[in-house]
Amino acid sequence: MASQSPLVVKVGGGAGIDLDLVCDEIAALVADREIVLVHGGSQRTNEVAAALGHPPRFVTSPSGFVSRLTDRATLEIFEMVYCGQVNKSLVERLIARGVTAIGLSGIDGRLWQGTRKDVLRVVEDGRTRIIRDNYTGRVERVNRTLLDNLLTSGYLPVLTPPAISFAGEAMNVDGDRAAAATAAALGASELVILSNVPGLLADFPDPTTRIPYIRPGDLEPLAQRHARGRMRIKLLAAAEALACGVQRVLLGDATAPRPVARALAGEGTVMSGEWQVASGEWQVARVKQVSELI
Amino acid sequence: MASQSPLVVKVGGGAGIDLDLVCDEIAALVADREIVLVHGGSQRTNEVAAALGHPPRFVTSPSGFVSRLTDRATLEIFEMVYCGQVNKSLVERLIARGVTAIGLSGIDGRLWQGTRKDVLRVVEDGRTRIIRDNYTGRVERVNRTLLDNLLTSGYLPVLTPPAISFAGEAMNVDGDRAAAATAAALGASELVILSNVPGLLADFPDPTTRIPYIRPGDLEPLAQRHARGRMRIKLLAAAEALACGVQRVLLGDATAPRPVARALAGEGTVMSGEWQVASGEWQVARVKQVSELI
Repeated sequence: MASQSPLVVKVGGGAGIDLDLVCDEIAALVADREIVLVHGGSQRTNEVAAALGHPPRFVTSPSGFVSRLTDRATLEIFEMVYCGQVNKSLVERLIARGVTAIGLSGIDGRLWQGTRKDVLRVVEDGRTRIIRDNYTGRVERVNRTLLDNLLTSGYLPVLTPPAISFAGEAMNVDGDRAAAATAAALGASELVILSNVPGLLADFPDPTTRIPYIRPGDLEPLAQRHARGRMRIKLLAAAEALACGVQRVLLGDATAPRPVARALAGEGTVMSGEWQVASGEWQVARVKQVSELI
Repeated sequence: MASQSPLVVKVGGGAGIDLDLVCDEIAALVADREIVLVHGGSQRTNEVAAALGHPPRFVTSPSGFVSRLTDRATLEIFEMVYCGQVNKSLVERLIARGVTAIGLSGIDGRLWQGTRKDVLRVVEDGRTRIIRDNYTGRVERVNRTLLDNLLTSGYLPVLTPPAISFAGEAMNVDGDRAAAATAAALGASELVILSNVPGLLADFPDPTTRIPYIRPGDLEPLAQRHARGRMRIKLLAAAEALACGVQRVLLGDATAPRPVARALAGEGTVMSGEWQVASGEWQVARVKQVSELI
């Protein structure tokens, strides 16, 4: 590939995603380009949480975004699955393919820092309610120095939530938005967000209704009409990445071979162009690069 | 402190160990000296494995060493607890104390490499039996370059099993022996091994029978007479570290404040002197530094 800037790939943890296919492709691509892999693990977390007697709960924000309710017990289960099981299984798969991967959470080396939202407003049965004991937040600073150091030394970083608050508390953050912040901080030209759907679908789950391209001004109306649940957050993450200088964000399907190349070739949903900070609920976040963190 | 070489501290995961006390002390010590922390998590792994319907099994080698039986399912639970829960909770505690800790397993960046022992000989009811589907091994190579890079950049590495086989498979390794290999590879002058007992006890668990010093030639008879279970492996780890050039190994008690300083002051069991490669079951391992791994 021609591009010299790193490629950031986010892969979700939903049903049907084949992590072996993703790792096969990354092992081939990394010969030509620096890659940072960010992953999820939501489905497996639900299973483990239920088995450990602390079943998952999801809440909806006043703006309509769905997220996991993360109390301290949930955070620790989340760390077990994301940082333990999923992260190490990806690192192991990549090493078995000859790639010297290194797995880090956003806590490690203060890689992803931000403000913890210790009080959460959620909507239940049409009424707004306050939840405390909440361990979530948003990535506002990325330790770019650490990532640059690892990339220069030939490692492939495999990154996972949680992040760390400025006060030093672990906090759950959305993986898509953390990937967007990472792509922005690294000056990546492209961010590929892989899940178990082929992109934004006008009529979910019909894959023939895929929307191949979203122009900047069309995001809000398209999202309002077509995006449900997790897809709304993916679009927000994409908007944040584009507003911070990433040139293209590509939503793609990780249930079939060569998901990254297919996404880059426009076989999912492509977002590009001059994105500005939007207003209201689609207000995008600015991320800071941290060059002198420690 | 006067010493310029890094200090390697291993802290176990047994009952009564206070990780907050350990982190309090490390946050104070790191101002004067580079520190690498290695941890366990055995007790918590047993609890989680039981909750997930895969209770732990322990086996005894023909030489009398007790270890966890690690099939693939156990390995994945082990990763959840060691790499997810325990590692991230230590990193979070250190960051909350102002230390930029970075958590890595032995898989990450091929930090701890070795040969997987895929066939295990164990003794059950006096008879030797063969176990396959075994994911354990021993650390033979340490990626010193990665550790040096992180230490030089101001990070405090927090390391945990598993390790990675030369064939690229995750494998459980003993944490004490991995800490010994790490101390040897880094050229550490001292290795502190903290657990919930004050050192080698002539009459376990009576703390007044602590053996304060072990001379090289006394290891085998003392171990034969007094060391049970995990303590036998700690003594083997100590012997390996000393044979590879570490000057002092200190066994100490992590259930009370300032465990590292107390161990360094000789309040546990001190081992030092000219250790040679021993024979028979106490044959110690040599570890290689890896300077050009990737």
